[in-house]
Amino acid sequence: MVTEIESRSLAGVLPLKYEDGQLLLLDQRKLPESLGYFNASSFDDICFAIKDMVVRGGPSIGVAAAFGFAMEAARRVRTTPFTSLPAEFLQIKVRLDATRPTAVNLRWATDRMLLFVQKLLRQKVETEDFCKQVIDEALLIFDEHISTNLAISNYGADLLSNGAKIITHCNAGPLAACGWGTAIGVIRAAHQRGMRPHVFADETRPRNQGAKLTMWELHQDRIPATLICDNMSGYLMSSQKIDMVIVGADRIARNGDAANKIGTFNLAIVAQHHKVPFYVAAPLSTFDATIFSGTEIPIEERSQLEVLEVDGKLSTVKGAIALNPAFDVTPNHLIAGIITEAGILRAPYDLSIAQALRAAGLLPEQQEQVSSAIVDTESR
Amino acid sequence: MVTEIESRSLAGVLPLKYEDGQLLLLDQRKLPESLGYFNASSFDDICFAIKDMVVRGGPSIGVAAAFGFAMEAARRVRTTPFTSLPAEFLQIKVRLDATRPTAVNLRWATDRMLLFVQKLLRQKVETEDFCKQVIDEALLIFDEHISTNLAISNYGADLLSNGAKIITHCNAGPLAACGWGTAIGVIRAAHQRGMRPHVFADETRPRNQGAKLTMWELHQDRIPATLICDNMSGYLMSSQKIDMVIVGADRIARNGDAANKIGTFNLAIVAQHHKVPFYVAAPLSTFDATIFSGTEIPIEERSQLEVLEVDGKLSTVKGAIALNPAFDVTPNHLIAGIITEAGILRAPYDLSIAQALRAAGLLPEQQEQVSSAIVDTESR
Repeated sequence: MVTEIESRSLAGVLPLKYEDGQLLLLDQRKLPESLGYFNASSFDDICFAIKDMVVRGGPSIGVAAAFGFAMEAARRVRTTPFTSLPAEFLQIKVRLDATRPTAVNLRWATDRMLLFVQKLLRQKVETEDFCKQVIDEALLIFDEHISTNLAISNYGADLLSNGAKIITHCNAGPLAACGWGTAIGVIRAAHQRGMRPHVFADETRPRNQGAKLTMWELHQDRIPATLICDNMSGYLMSSQKIDMVIVGADRIARNGDAANKIGTFNLAIVAQHHKVPFYVAAPLSTFDATIFSGTEIPIEERSQLEVLEVDGKLSTVKGAIALNPAFDVTPNHLIAGIITEAGILRAPYDLSIAQALRAAGLLPEQQEQVSSAIVDTESR
Repeated sequence: MVTEIESRSLAGVLPLKYEDGQLLLLDQRKLPESLGYFNASSFDDICFAIKDMVVRGGPSIGVAAAFGFAMEAARRVRTTPFTSLPAEFLQIKVRLDATRPTAVNLRWATDRMLLFVQKLLRQKVETEDFCKQVIDEALLIFDEHISTNLAISNYGADLLSNGAKIITHCNAGPLAACGWGTAIGVIRAAHQRGMRPHVFADETRPRNQGAKLTMWELHQDRIPATLICDNMSGYLMSSQKIDMVIVGADRIARNGDAANKIGTFNLAIVAQHHKVPFYVAAPLSTFDATIFSGTEIPIEERSQLEVLEVDGKLSTVKGAIALNPAFDVTPNHLIAGIITEAGILRAPYDLSIAQALRAAGLLPEQQEQVSSAIVDTESR
């Protein structure tokens, strides 16, 4: 199945691979200088890799977490008495969920894996069969993500005109999204159709994912791209015609408010000022059906050093302090549409999102519940 | 007079000094790591220092250019036949004006110096007296700039409330403005009044003047400051009360459109979205009375390497291209007021600006003309 996934990613490089019982994560911290895989063989390694952004981007994090869950569940099934397993599986989920607080795909994946192993426990599946089935489930999630991205990309490419000039922020390409991409997936699809899109990539301070990752991905695909600083979008929109802004998302509330990399909100405001349509491309797994507006989305604060230092060297006066929110929330009224595998959702978002989530069976009332038990675990 | 200027700057460190016939420029490229003066002893050195941003910021550039003009005019008076001097003085101006195309203070200063030396020629002043008088004129320009900045700062501080939270972009402090500051001058005045302002300083990509210079200056004055990335202003304004944005300017058109460091326009749009008042602080010498809107302001394009590299190391994929406009233009309707030494100018700007320039004798029809001769020189 890995080979199949590889052939569908088309980038030639996958952000993660499962081979011979090992999870290999392309070390995104080291791109574009070096192309190396981080061998996440232990559960601690996987948690570290998500937290330290070896693997990043909502969908890739979700799939990495699914494998982390599967591998650790398989290990514990072999070593733990049966009666302790329900609590141990919950612990796995709690531990993974804590690695990054904003991306909801992570929790979507751990929810799904937890329900899956709970079902296997109820079915009293044999240990070896259990181990095979949990890994197969993670592989299925991986494969589904690529299908989802391809669907998103085709819906999105229909929105573009030939020669479209597009600004994007951070990285929502193959690295972030399991080998294909959401926002960059749309551009890749347009490029494959011969529509000659041109991308302006925000460098995306403070971690420069736009400069390091998006520019690298576009270069692999030979898609014309120009690097800009995050503060140049207004100049660009006022000095030449920009057709569209497309970004990914880390979590979307039921009213369409979308959390994404810090700076997305500024870009959305600047786009609105210039009447440039601002689109979000994200799978339905990015929607958090339990929250009703963006104000409920927790914003991860990362280390000040990411802002104060460049390559480990202080870039400001000694003793300076900095802010480093990793995400911001773009309110629904700034978003022209949300491109999903179920089509393009438009305002009023509360209705279009509820409809899409219901059709996909993703509304809370349609799902088995794992959350109450988790709340108990967390409150202890 | 230098000592007098030094005592009035209060920062303890002047961005430029004229001592023993030499122009010493604080090397702003090396801050905050090291504090050293660049000895701009030849005219070539001075031109290089402006172009390469050893000295930067509209007012500091203007004063450096005034000294450059004065020193080179004095040298040529000693070495050139009298009849060649008018053409040689024009050449000095043309050469200085070409170092940075956007900042108008540069041209304001070279215009003033050219008129001054033309007057001395007409008066047939003796060589030694000529040399003394041109240097005195540059020193006078320097001193006037500090007075102007103090006036701006006092008008601006009147706008602030106690404990105000202020976002600024790039550097409009003592380094940019001859030892006192315009936008940061306002904050310094408020701080001196005990009003406890708190500054959020945009790092200001790609050259990070906010991180390197503004944070350093604020630290010298012990003014509380937090470094942010340029893309965090929306998050900041939506998550806490920001009272004001204040920035400097490199050139202001007669309708109030203001060119300033790239990213200022984005910040102004984000401020308007959050109903945070956006102020520009600049001396009247920053107004270009010959242009009627921001569309006429030429925008300097600097080397792509400033965006593609960090500390000389490529920060993106090899072969990548980048945009690097050094400035953008904030349209007048986004500006709550322009804080000048003549008070705070408000919309309708065409009227308030014309009135202030007329009162200061800065309208083209009020001034002796040097421009026609210069156009002739340039068109050759």
